[in-house]
Amino acid sequence: MTKVPFEKRRGGTVTTPLGFLASGIRSGIKQKKKYDSALIVSENPAIAAGTFTLNRAKAWPVIYSMKAIHGARHRGILASSGNANCFNGAQGKAAVADAVASVAHLLKVSPEEILIAQTGLIGVPFPINRFKRGLPKLVERLSPDGGKKAAKGILTTDLRTKEVALSFHLGKKRVTIGAVAKGAGMVHPNMATMLCFITTDVKITKRLLRRALRRAVDETFNRLAIDNDQSTNDTVLILANGQAGNHTIARVDRRYRLFRDALEEVCRYVARELVRGGEGVTKVCTLHISGAKRPTDAEKVARQIGTSMLFKTMLAGADPNWGRLVAAIGASGVDFDSKRLDISFDGVFVLSHGKLRVSNLPKARRVLQKREFDLNIGLGKGHARAEFITSDLTPKYVLINSSYSS
Amino acid sequence: MTKVPFEKRRGGTVTTPLGFLASGIRSGIKQKKKYDSALIVSENPAIAAGTFTLNRAKAWPVIYSMKAIHGARHRGILASSGNANCFNGAQGKAAVADAVASVAHLLKVSPEEILIAQTGLIGVPFPINRFKRGLPKLVERLSPDGGKKAAKGILTTDLRTKEVALSFHLGKKRVTIGAVAKGAGMVHPNMATMLCFITTDVKITKRLLRRALRRAVDETFNRLAIDNDQSTNDTVLILANGQAGNHTIARVDRRYRLFRDALEEVCRYVARELVRGGEGVTKVCTLHISGAKRPTDAEKVARQIGTSMLFKTMLAGADPNWGRLVAAIGASGVDFDSKRLDISFDGVFVLSHGKLRVSNLPKARRVLQKREFDLNIGLGKGHARAEFITSDLTPKYVLINSSYSS
Repeated sequence: MTKVPFEKRRGGTVTTPLGFLASGIRSGIKQKKKYDSALIVSENPAIAAGTFTLNRAKAWPVIYSMKAIHGARHRGILASSGNANCFNGAQGKAAVADAVASVAHLLKVSPEEILIAQTGLIGVPFPINRFKRGLPKLVERLSPDGGKKAAKGILTTDLRTKEVALSFHLGKKRVTIGAVAKGAGMVHPNMATMLCFITTDVKITKRLLRRALRRAVDETFNRLAIDNDQSTNDTVLILANGQAGNHTIARVDRRYRLFRDALEEVCRYVARELVRGGEGVTKVCTLHISGAKRPTDAEKVARQIGTSMLFKTMLAGADPNWGRLVAAIGASGVDFDSKRLDISFDGVFVLSHGKLRVSNLPKARRVLQKREFDLNIGLGKGHARAEFITSDLTPKYVLINSSYSS
Repeated sequence: MTKVPFEKRRGGTVTTPLGFLASGIRSGIKQKKKYDSALIVSENPAIAAGTFTLNRAKAWPVIYSMKAIHGARHRGILASSGNANCFNGAQGKAAVADAVASVAHLLKVSPEEILIAQTGLIGVPFPINRFKRGLPKLVERLSPDGGKKAAKGILTTDLRTKEVALSFHLGKKRVTIGAVAKGAGMVHPNMATMLCFITTDVKITKRLLRRALRRAVDETFNRLAIDNDQSTNDTVLILANGQAGNHTIARVDRRYRLFRDALEEVCRYVARELVRGGEGVTKVCTLHISGAKRPTDAEKVARQIGTSMLFKTMLAGADPNWGRLVAAIGASGVDFDSKRLDISFDGVFVLSHGKLRVSNLPKARRVLQKREFDLNIGLGKGHARAEFITSDLTPKYVLINSSYSS
């Protein structure tokens, strides 16, 4: 990634870009007194792009939005938490259509302009009446300061909201990208259970917006692991309303790449926040694999290590057990040169050109006691690289996940 | 599998088949006062077959035995625990050759007739002198009652030995198959960290012995998961010495299939024992996937569920969260009919033809509180099936694995 002067906005969120309103309320989907509904709206017609779960058991809102995303113009994203609206029969499908029509009516836009995403328990009838009764309030409360409330409206077991906004310049125009997300548990490559809504005031073609989003998601959300499961509801949506007033980005040029890099930076920030906020997570480790023959090799090694339960428990125990790392590298099936293999934690080498550095082990142990650190692995076979974000696996993760539905 | 009258032998082990001797001792590889060396020998020249880890980082004994296995005649298996003899440079390679030559000399056989397998920590120089000093005692103590001691010689963190023997009749001759194994932690499909040594007095060609072993390993050891890692040392070896005196099995006929099924039964028993004895395991769940379009589909679903951390924590919590199962089935990418999907625990349906059976949930919860139970999933798409053995994921697993090397 090119280094560019991205300005991180203080208290930045999805309403930081020009022309976006948002709201979040409690409409009673959750039994607990918690926010469970959110709405994000552009003042003017915007364009949209999205990426969705690869799970074959797709929730109704995913099925709906995967189709709706192809429209030319969009105005808003309706979201709810507490009920995944998945695997609950025809009632769930009807609930999506009903909710979308209702909110479109209240916003005085066409239903085709509304996207929807939901998260929560699978297989439970969706409480459409309660949700619909809340919609007038949700619309009424739309505000340019509503980002934080929208962020609260999509949380499930998350401990805190995930929000960010970055700005950068395109010529003389300042462009902003904002995002809110939910994660927790089940977050894994290939778009695990997470919702992320991104807004931007950039002017760009729909084709390039889609291209930039795909790439950003691939490099960030698809390269992280808390556990190794994939959800039925994962959705990333972006709305671009053009209010920054820049010349439309319509070609793959320097300006496109600037936007693309900023979008990737926003997604990377959110991805790291998702791992930090994962169930039972106490440590975040960013893997940097280098020296691979080809990029897919580097990614394979990163994924093998990042999803290894033995590696993740090793992080929990702050134990620089490089033997497990060698076993995981080998298990990936990827070519590496055992005589040139390097393994280091935050620059502390435990293996250097295939030789154990025993005297560094105590120092490496101290690195592993930190809340965040990097693990660099050099395979000694080529020049391809990959990055991956992973977490430790703690007894707390097990405790949280062994009593979710009951 | 055809149902045949296999007789499980009381106290059966690797010395139960005719003409096998074994021994186990402490030679000081482990710092703790525990057995760490084992030897299994056939009185007469035998034939051998083996399957080995697919990990690219293979331990020295694996590299050695993968080559040696091609010999026409074998006499014994030398094994040790405490040191994996892996990723420790040329010293480790020399140690294998040295140990094999020493034991062959003591047994008055050719080094080519000896197979070797080792398990333990990676990346530590192998204490070849200590090991060699123990070899005379190991040979001296060879005995037709030595199976139990050999079983103890290969344990690492295992809580108990894994041994079994089955007999069956081929015409008027009684044929016996015996096995010892070590597992614990890291046990996963594709031959995870485990050693299994099988002896049999059957008379069979080397080609068919290999074929039967491959199939048995594929259906059992490659279909289980404790965690999702693969070791550098996994080895399954079988010796057949022909002392049962049956007509040589030389064709794929009824007699071959009888032997093959018996061998598979031995491996299945050992596989279940490996899962039962896995680190921190309190529950063993056997998955039966049916109604798949093709066998690979059934296997994919079985593997997706069997290795899902969310599924395994759900077992720990005795929570029949069928939503997670639907998500895991979907994540496998395999075709299923949501209107014909069946999910039942020990015959208690929580989903029947795609419909939730709420009233059965308390009963299903009671099944999940048992130490062993079956999970049946019908995909409603065809007639292919697959089986898979998995365990719960407990806080204890995490605690054990977060402090292994230190």
